[in-house]
Amino acid sequence: MKNHFYNNLKIGVLGGGQLGRMFIQEAVNFDATVYIMDPDPEAPCKNIANSFIQGDLKDFDAVYNFGKSVDLLTIEIEHVNVDAMQRLEDEGLKVYPRPALLKIVQDKGLQKQFYFEHQIPTADFYLVKDKSEIAQYKAQFPFMQKLRKGGYDGRGVTRLENPDNLESAFDEPSVLEKLIDFEKEISVIIARNAEGVSNCFPVVELEFNPEANLVEFLFAPANISKDIEAQAFDIASKVAGALDLVGILAVEMFVTKDGKVLVNEIAPRTHNSGHHTIEANYTSQYEQHLRSILNLPLGSTKAKCPAVMVNLLGEKGYTGNVNYKGLEEVLSMEGVKLHLYGKKTTKPFRKMGHITVLAEDLTKAKEKAKKVKELLKVIGEE
Amino acid sequence: MKNHFYNNLKIGVLGGGQLGRMFIQEAVNFDATVYIMDPDPEAPCKNIANSFIQGDLKDFDAVYNFGKSVDLLTIEIEHVNVDAMQRLEDEGLKVYPRPALLKIVQDKGLQKQFYFEHQIPTADFYLVKDKSEIAQYKAQFPFMQKLRKGGYDGRGVTRLENPDNLESAFDEPSVLEKLIDFEKEISVIIARNAEGVSNCFPVVELEFNPEANLVEFLFAPANISKDIEAQAFDIASKVAGALDLVGILAVEMFVTKDGKVLVNEIAPRTHNSGHHTIEANYTSQYEQHLRSILNLPLGSTKAKCPAVMVNLLGEKGYTGNVNYKGLEEVLSMEGVKLHLYGKKTTKPFRKMGHITVLAEDLTKAKEKAKKVKELLKVIGEE
Repeated sequence: MKNHFYNNLKIGVLGGGQLGRMFIQEAVNFDATVYIMDPDPEAPCKNIANSFIQGDLKDFDAVYNFGKSVDLLTIEIEHVNVDAMQRLEDEGLKVYPRPALLKIVQDKGLQKQFYFEHQIPTADFYLVKDKSEIAQYKAQFPFMQKLRKGGYDGRGVTRLENPDNLESAFDEPSVLEKLIDFEKEISVIIARNAEGVSNCFPVVELEFNPEANLVEFLFAPANISKDIEAQAFDIASKVAGALDLVGILAVEMFVTKDGKVLVNEIAPRTHNSGHHTIEANYTSQYEQHLRSILNLPLGSTKAKCPAVMVNLLGEKGYTGNVNYKGLEEVLSMEGVKLHLYGKKTTKPFRKMGHITVLAEDLTKAKEKAKKVKELLKVIGEE
Repeated sequence: MKNHFYNNLKIGVLGGGQLGRMFIQEAVNFDATVYIMDPDPEAPCKNIANSFIQGDLKDFDAVYNFGKSVDLLTIEIEHVNVDAMQRLEDEGLKVYPRPALLKIVQDKGLQKQFYFEHQIPTADFYLVKDKSEIAQYKAQFPFMQKLRKGGYDGRGVTRLENPDNLESAFDEPSVLEKLIDFEKEISVIIARNAEGVSNCFPVVELEFNPEANLVEFLFAPANISKDIEAQAFDIASKVAGALDLVGILAVEMFVTKDGKVLVNEIAPRTHNSGHHTIEANYTSQYEQHLRSILNLPLGSTKAKCPAVMVNLLGEKGYTGNVNYKGLEEVLSMEGVKLHLYGKKTTKPFRKMGHITVLAEDLTKAKEKAKKVKELLKVIGEE
């Protein structure tokens, strides 16, 4: 019997959150066997993984031992022990994304230097070791300050307006990034397999919740010119090639008011800006990730119809057992597709699920998505 | 804490095959908790159910005890112990489809009488107790003979051409059905919730493998006139209403050469003729089933694009560990969506998976589906 992917080839995933959960839902279609490790015993993947192991993703031994139990290792979160991944790769395990790539991405300082070295357009920046080093760049304020390591889901980022008031500034190694006067934020998801074949999903547009720095709405396709689109695809391909990517990479970009495209951040995994592909595209980002790490032909990324994605974030002021208020009304709307992540308790801005709204045209989908946002409240109760 | 469906409300499903598997994939999106019972310890649902219990679906105690462990009971196969379901309903459990409905459907004789009593058009028929009763209908040959009970997936059906040669005839209680000179076979899936709200998926067209009497290709939408479509929807609604359906019902019909629509068979569950809805419609039949049994608003059944579904049946002459020959080539085709059912061994005509082909128009989708059928062979190996 050959080792086909449908014959119990064990795919290990570091992280068991919603991205892993949606990955498993697609992996089921390929009859792929998915092992999950996550520190949370109630992680979203718990009930649907072929095997679920509780373990610390940052612990060398935990990651190493988990890797030893599978035939191929991948991630759904980038904050993992990369040294263990490196050791596993050195010992012959297929590890995608590659540890060398992950090392760059885990450190926003290295990420920025990488862009600089590869002539990939990005906002100007300075690296600082701690708060005391910020004042020297007084003349160039305002900045976004980003922790070099450990930031996630809107955390680890702060806006510095005034050099004389650095109270909110981080006192850790970080990147000072010149504020970009952008017109919109866009994202491209690119997949690349071990043979170097790659393709991109259509460009999408992101609207952030300014308070939580989290994606609130996603519009697919993005309302951009052909020129901007070409720049975005070109940048995504350049980044993926330079990183020798195998897997999926989300490239978040700014479109400046003078028509330039700059890389903001990258994530070498399935991403919030690709959730809508489950319903709206021929191939979803989750299936594409699976295809790329298995070195299968990549699927067509063509859109079936326009879509708007709404993140379901825990309402401010509520913590406790989740109650999706207004859900029935939302479910009665045409083209509304619900995705709950299996989290039983909510807290402010926790990503609890998302809704994809499909319609014949984007304007209609946007109207519906706004209605969804008004109607549906993720609250907590005793 | 209220008993929302996403708060560990336990949905029990009798049967753990591919229909249950695809149901769970959708139930995950609603964070619904699914318990499965199936006699096969390696059933397709095994790894993804919240709870999987091995048990005999025809055994009263097994079904009754399983029902006692859940908050709501449904099926994915109709050959289950209906007396146990009746007892559970009498004791207050929500059981959908209702046992009274299932009793009719389980017995093809009662099914035919039900159509007759409710003026639902169907082929003329006679009920016989055994083989000896067949000869009296000599003048009306040829017939399709169908076992009243236990037939499934093309089994329990035989064609009687010649009254003087009844060798292949069943010697059990069965229905003799006048052969219909049909032009095509179509199917409508209708959903109905506890409030009596119902809607239909668009009519699809079925092409059968004549040898195995199994669906080989499905075309969505069906190539039929508005009049035939109206008859089909009308019949589906009439059947669902008369049966007081809660859940999903597949109504397979013949379109005769003189433009009439006749019911062939019904199945009160998700059905092979609705697989394509996962990708091709706003709501899939699996989500619709979930919505109907939870008494949620039904989803829109609108199509996103045309689709052709190809069943992946085990090749004749092969038994053993499955090998999907030609799969990589098929995966490189645009709009091809793979669904493997998690069965590790194949045998002739076993339903191993399906492929949905999406395209801008049905002609293109049909061409691709034929190519898929040529390229992909489900063979067995040691």
